[in-house]
Amino acid sequence: MMNKIGFAILISIFFLLGNKSDVPVDQQHGLIPNTNMLHIGIVVKDIDKALDHWSKFLGLKEKPNISIATGHPDNPTQYRGHPSNAQAKLAFMDLENLRVELIEPIGDEPSNWKEFLDTKGEGVHHIAFEVKGLGEQYVGLFDENGYAMAQHGGWDGGEYGYMDGSKNLGVVVELLEFYGE
Amino acid sequence: MMNKIGFAILISIFFLLGNKSDVPVDQQHGLIPNTNMLHIGIVVKDIDKALDHWSKFLGLKEKPNISIATGHPDNPTQYRGHPSNAQAKLAFMDLENLRVELIEPIGDEPSNWKEFLDTKGEGVHHIAFEVKGLGEQYVGLFDENGYAMAQHGGWDGGEYGYMDGSKNLGVVVELLEFYGE
Repeated sequence: MMNKIGFAILISIFFLLGNKSDVPVDQQHGLIPNTNMLHIGIVVKDIDKALDHWSKFLGLKEKPNISIATGHPDNPTQYRGHPSNAQAKLAFMDLENLRVELIEPIGDEPSNWKEFLDTKGEGVHHIAFEVKGLGEQYVGLFDENGYAMAQHGGWDGGEYGYMDGSKNLGVVVELLEFYGE
Repeated sequence: MMNKIGFAILISIFFLLGNKSDVPVDQQHGLIPNTNMLHIGIVVKDIDKALDHWSKFLGLKEKPNISIATGHPDNPTQYRGHPSNAQAKLAFMDLENLRVELIEPIGDEPSNWKEFLDTKGEGVHHIAFEVKGLGEQYVGLFDENGYAMAQHGGWDGGEYGYMDGSKNLGVVVELLEFYGE
């Protein structure tokens, strides 16, 4: 008896899992495929100073490393549809349930980071979620739903798109795709 | 032999746990006692419109309820040290690893919400963490470290303080204390 019930449950699970992938992404999940917020991205004027404050706030033993975000040949940086040489200093910090990214735009090259800093000042620029099929599926889906691509670029291991949700959600959505997972 | 090792490990754990509570909160943890971000709070002009966008973005089956935040007799609302009759419409949405709070300030009464909307426009106003001993310990600790209390208030089940981290962290920190837990 238990074996039959177990078998029926297994069949149901397989059916549900199998069926899941046939449902269009926007009907099944909304615009994002999952609601696990990977990080919040904060644009600051001086990342070194901000890291001192964040380290003390979180009680970090070591000050996080700063890296430089530049363009990548496979995904040259685009800002509002135009090529951009935008660069920024980045740092990440692990909290219990998500990360905080600090971003200091470098120089005067136009970027969504600099646009935010110039119009709003320091603050939370974006919230980030992981997707598979950024260029093939999500950029189009978001665009149709009123989220223009504010910036796009990549690094060795993946690519990102800032979808402009500032007018509808009150914040930019970063879609992140990690290659080779 | 294993028993002796086990005993030694147990003693070490008890010692570490016992010792932990003797370390001042700012040396042990930084300014917050834990790094579990409960929610991000987004100030918007029109919560009804924003909820439509958020519901579609997250794929919510039902549009979240809107409640009204008013003052509470036990914790009358204070804005930058002065009594305030500030009110706001609030709504919460559950994501996988934290919540999103939407806040629409009501009327022209001064508040930290309205201050944000008037100076920065719609956007992420605060990040929230839970504490025990808000008034007894954390308001003073944050103040000493350069975080002025921008707003304070309460509801039936607890109280909150907005500590102004906009100049150092790039965002306001909401400290939340839930009573009776």
